[in-house]
Order: sequence, then C-alpha cells, then structure tokens
Amino acid sequence: MNQTVTFITLGVSDLERSRRFYADALGWSPTFDLPGTITFFQVAPGVLLGIWPIDELAHDSGAPMTAGSAAMALAQNFDSDAAVDAAYQRAVAAGADPLKPPQRHPEIGIYHAYVADPDGHRWELAHNPGWSVDADGTVHLV
Amino acid sequence: MNQTVTFITLGVSDLERSRRFYADALGWSPTFDLPGTITFFQVAPGVLLGIWPIDELAHDSGAPMTAGSAAMALAQNFDSDAAVDAAYQRAVAAGADPLKPPQRHPEIGIYHAYVADPDGHRWELAHNPGWSVDADGTVHLV
Repeated sequence: MNQTVTFITLGVSDLERSRRFYADALGWSPTFDLPGTITFFQVAPGVLLGIWPIDELAHDSGAPMTAGSAAMALAQNFDSDAAVDAAYQRAVAAGADPLKPPQRHPEIGIYHAYVADPDGHRWELAHNPGWSVDADGTVHLV
Repeated sequence: MNQTVTFITLGVSDLERSRRFYADALGWSPTFDLPGTITFFQVAPGVLLGIWPIDELAHDSGAPMTAGSAAMALAQNFDSDAAVDAAYQRAVAAGADPLKPPQRHPEIGIYHAYVADPDGHRWELAHNPGWSVDADGTVHLV
C-alpha cells in the first residue's frame, strides 16, 4: 500500500457557504470548480482539498456520516510569526471561528493559532522554525 | 493566506493501536516517530500525516474534540484497478473497517473502495484515469 494522500475531502453542510469562505473570503484558487456540486483546491504538489456536501460524501463512502468536525486538524505552515498573525486575522475576518489566538507554544517553541471553517473543520496556522522541505519535497522536522 | 496543507493530523483514541495499523500492518515508514507521543508519516511532497492522541490534539487546538471521524475523507490514488483491490485487501487484513468494497463508480467511472482506520477516519482507495500530476506537482482532473 503506498504511503500517500492525494485528496483531502471535507464534508460540508452548505457548499456555497464553504465555497465563499475558501474561494472568495480566503482567496483560494479552485483547481476544479463545479459550483453547486463540488470544488477542489490544490494544496500541495499532487494533493487536492475538496469541499463536498456531507450527504454526497457519506453516500460515496458507503456509510452514514456525522456533520461537523471531529478528531482531525489540518495545518498550514508560514515563514514568520507575522505571517501567522496576518493569516489568523484574515481567516477570522472571513468568518472562521477563532479557537486559539496566535501564541507561542510553551513546550515546542512554534508560534501558532487555530481557527475552524464554517463546518468546524480545524486549521492550525503555524510558524515552525524546525520545519524544512528539500527541493524533492522531503520534509524534515527537527 | 497561502493555499497549502502541510499537516493532516488525525486524533486517535489509542496511539499504539493506530501506530500498529499504519506503520506495522500497512508498512508505512515514519518520518518522525516518538512512540507513545506522536508519529508522523510523509504522504506527499511537503506534507506530513500525524497520529496524535485526541486529548492532545483537542488541548493543542483550544477546544474540546469529539472522538472518531466526522465529515472528512482522505484518498489515495493508484495506477490500476488491481492496485486498488490489493490495497483494499491489505487494509482490511490490517484491521480496517471495510465500508465499501472495490467497485466501478456508476457516474464518474473511477474504480474505488472505502475503508476506515481504527478510529473511523475514512480512506478512499481509487484508480482515477482522469487524474494526472505534472512534474512540478500540478494536478489535473479531467
């Protein structure tokens, strides 16, 4: 079994609301956009993040699905503390739920914040000086 | 705000059980491994998937968190229908919950299956002939 993620699909309760949040308010560019059906955004080399109505995702995956977030978070890394502050402010202005304002993590030294999208899907916004990526995409965590 | 995902963190109720599932049973190679604390696997260029106890992830993200999966699925693409079958069989042998056996999607033509990890986090295993990735990581969906 290969060790890859090619899609991250978030089930959403109101597709237009989520599309406005990610595309209009945050300014993300859709890679594949069928308004009213599904929208995908490229979020890493070879990786798409999709927003799809919960009922469709539940039906496609063969089992009922609970609305909202549960035990999962996505993260975006930034190059500076100031970039984390700016991203946090933009997300909150876009309607994200401010779960944790930007702050220094007392143990591991990163500077980070958390917000939630309109369905409660959590995003960490972080500046982690120990994070680096080689030209071939290999990640290093100090 | 940049349009990236750098971490996908799954909250898990039994870290050792999840580590056995991903590392031992599925054969994934950890990028950063602190058994009993947290384990990360590289799943795309510049992207890590982490397994972390639910309570830790909830505390870190500033709000209580419900155990189990919710409205989200991750996906792995494969190069052939046979590779999907093999991945599905391996995942189920590893203890994954078989949500949807491998089958042709009646509308969009992909061949896919769904399984769930020990906490219910859903994975789609798919062969999608319309999926392609350029050398620079740009994704195309027909």
